[in-house]
Amino acid sequence: MKPIKHEPLNIKRPDQSLTANLQDKIDQKTKPLGALGQLEKIALQVGLIQQSLTPVLTRPVVMVFAGDHGVVAEGVSPFPQSVTQQMVMNFLAGGAAVNVFARQHQMQVKVVDAGVNHVFEPHPDLIDAKIGMGTRNFVEAEAMTFSQCATALQQGARLAETEIAAGTNILAFGEMGIGNSTAAAAIMAGLCTLPPSQCAGRGTGLGDAGVQHKIAVIEQALQRHASAQSPMEILACLGGFEIAMMTGAMLAAAEARSLLLIDGFIATVALLVASRLQPEILHYCVFSHCSDEAGHALLLKQLDAKPVLNLGMRLGEGTGAVMAYPLVQAAVNFLNEMASFESAHVSGKVI
Amino acid sequence: MKPIKHEPLNIKRPDQSLTANLQDKIDQKTKPLGALGQLEKIALQVGLIQQSLTPVLTRPVVMVFAGDHGVVAEGVSPFPQSVTQQMVMNFLAGGAAVNVFARQHQMQVKVVDAGVNHVFEPHPDLIDAKIGMGTRNFVEAEAMTFSQCATALQQGARLAETEIAAGTNILAFGEMGIGNSTAAAAIMAGLCTLPPSQCAGRGTGLGDAGVQHKIAVIEQALQRHASAQSPMEILACLGGFEIAMMTGAMLAAAEARSLLLIDGFIATVALLVASRLQPEILHYCVFSHCSDEAGHALLLKQLDAKPVLNLGMRLGEGTGAVMAYPLVQAAVNFLNEMASFESAHVSGKVI
Repeated sequence: MKPIKHEPLNIKRPDQSLTANLQDKIDQKTKPLGALGQLEKIALQVGLIQQSLTPVLTRPVVMVFAGDHGVVAEGVSPFPQSVTQQMVMNFLAGGAAVNVFARQHQMQVKVVDAGVNHVFEPHPDLIDAKIGMGTRNFVEAEAMTFSQCATALQQGARLAETEIAAGTNILAFGEMGIGNSTAAAAIMAGLCTLPPSQCAGRGTGLGDAGVQHKIAVIEQALQRHASAQSPMEILACLGGFEIAMMTGAMLAAAEARSLLLIDGFIATVALLVASRLQPEILHYCVFSHCSDEAGHALLLKQLDAKPVLNLGMRLGEGTGAVMAYPLVQAAVNFLNEMASFESAHVSGKVI
Repeated sequence: MKPIKHEPLNIKRPDQSLTANLQDKIDQKTKPLGALGQLEKIALQVGLIQQSLTPVLTRPVVMVFAGDHGVVAEGVSPFPQSVTQQMVMNFLAGGAAVNVFARQHQMQVKVVDAGVNHVFEPHPDLIDAKIGMGTRNFVEAEAMTFSQCATALQQGARLAETEIAAGTNILAFGEMGIGNSTAAAAIMAGLCTLPPSQCAGRGTGLGDAGVQHKIAVIEQALQRHASAQSPMEILACLGGFEIAMMTGAMLAAAEARSLLLIDGFIATVALLVASRLQPEILHYCVFSHCSDEAGHALLLKQLDAKPVLNLGMRLGEGTGAVMAYPLVQAAVNFLNEMASFESAHVSGKVI
C-alpha cells in the first residue's frame, strides 16, 4: 500500500530560549515556589508556544466533528446511528452539553459534518465538510479509502486554519459519532500494539456482554487489516471521518502554534495518530481530563499526559476540553496579573 | 475544662424527597446515563440543598481569613511572620493569586483580619474581626483562650451571615497565616488520632529537616495538650484565629443552606472541626482540590471527600476553591440549560 502524505507539515518544538525568563517571572510571583502546581507548567507552556512573557488567549473555539460509522452494523453501540444526526441538530440548537459549557466560557462552537449519514438542510452554523455518508464497516472493508482519509485530514487542517485566521489561538476538539469509541479503540490497539481488551470500553453504555462483543469485533478488524502498519494506513482502515478530520485539524493548529485542548478518549486517539506523524505536536497540547471510558487512562499514560480534570466524565463532544479552558485561562492570568514579591513588598524565604 | 458551645446550631441533611425528580431530570438530558460523572452528583447536591429543580448560584464570594501564629517562634516556616500582613495588603491591592482567579470568575473577595500581628490602617475592603495580635505559641500554652476561640467562631458566623444576607448562596473559604499549616496539622493529628508525621507537610517550602522539626514541634504540642479532647478544646489549644473563624463561617453558611467550596489543607482542617461539631455539614460541601500538602489526601479520605481538581496546588488563600467554582457553575448550567431527549428529539438506547 502506498503511504499517504499530508504535506506540508513540520511541527517543531517551541523555541525554549525563553524558558529561564518565564520561569523567573513565575517564581517571582507572591506564592511559595511551585505552589500553583500544574498551572505553572501550563503558564510556561503557553508562554513558550507564544514566545511571550505576557501570553494571551484569543477567540477560543471548540470544533465538534461529527461522523457515522459502518461498524455500528455489528451492534457495538446501544444507541441507533440516527443519534449522530440528531445530536448535530442538538448542537445547532444550542442544547447539548458542549453548548452549555462553551456558552459559560464564551467559547465558539463550530459544528462540522465530517461524514454523517444524513443530508442536512443548509444551516448557518453547520460546516459542511462531508466526506461520505458514514464509513464502511471495517470488519468487512477499509473504513475509508486512502483518498477519503487524505481529504478528511486536509479538510480538518483547512477548517482549523480558518479559525486561526479569524484570530483563534486556542482550539478545543470534540466529536460525535455513534460507534466511534469502537473505531478509536481499534486505532489505539493497532497503533500501540495493545490487546483490544485494554482499549475498548462501555462507550455510551454497553453492558459487560456488549463490551466483550465490541472487543471481539475489534479483534476481527485488526486481523483483517493486519497489513496496515503506518499511522495513516491504520487511520484509514479503522478510523472515522470525524476522527481523521480532527487529526488534520490538530496538526494544522499545532503547526500554526496554537494551543490544543484535548478532550476524552476519541479526541486523544485522534491526537495519538497526529503524534505518530508529528511527535512534537505534544508540546502544544493541554490534556483536559481523564475520561471514565476504559482505555483512556492507559492512552494518556502512553502519551505521558497528565490531565487537569478528573471528573469521571465520558461524554465526548469536547465537553472535557471546554471544562478545562478556565484552568488554562487561570494559568495565563496569574502570569500576567499576579504581583511579584518586589512589586507587592512581600518578604521572601528566610530559612 | 468546660466545653464551649456555639449555639444555636442545628445543621440538618437537606430534605431528600426531591432526589428522584432531580435524578430523572439529569437522566433525561441528551447524554448517556451518568456521562457527566461528578458534575451530575454536584447538580443533584445543589438541587437538594436549594430544594429546587432549577437551582441558581448567586453572588459567589471567597472569604479569606488571615491570622498569625505564635508557633512560628519554633521556626516552623521558612517565611517570616511579617508575610501574613504583607499578603493581606497584597489581597487588598488585588495582586494575589486568589484575587486573579476571583476576578476571572466574578467572585467577590472578602479579606478578614482574624488576628494578624499588625495594626492595619482602616481600608474599605478589609474586615476587622481581630481577636488578637496572633495566637500564643501552642508548645508553651493554649494557642488561644476558650473565650477567644468562641469569639472567633461567632465572628466567623456573623461574617458569613452578612454575605448570605447580601444574596450569596455559595461561599469559598481561604486563609493566610504564616505557621498555619503547623496548626492545621496539629489539629488533624489531635482530632483524627493520627501521628503528626502523617499530617505535617512542607507548608510554604520546608526541606526534609524542616519537616522533621515541624513534626517534633507538633508532637510536643500534642503532649502538652493531651487533655484536650473535644473538637472545641483541640481547636482552642492548637488552632489559629483564622482557622477558628473559618470554622464558624462554614457552620453558619451550611446552617443557612449555602453551598460551601472547600479549599486545601488548612480549610479542610477547619471543616474537619466543623464536621465534628455538626456532621451533616458535609452535605453542603464541594471539595475543590487535593492539595500537594502532605496530609491533605489522607484528610480528604477521612472525610470521604472526592475533590474535583488535582492540579498539585498548595497555595491556600482559597485559590483551589475559586478554581473549582466554574465546575459547580457547569453542573448547575447543564441541569438548567441542556436539552432533554424529548425536547431535542434524540433517540434513546435500543439495546
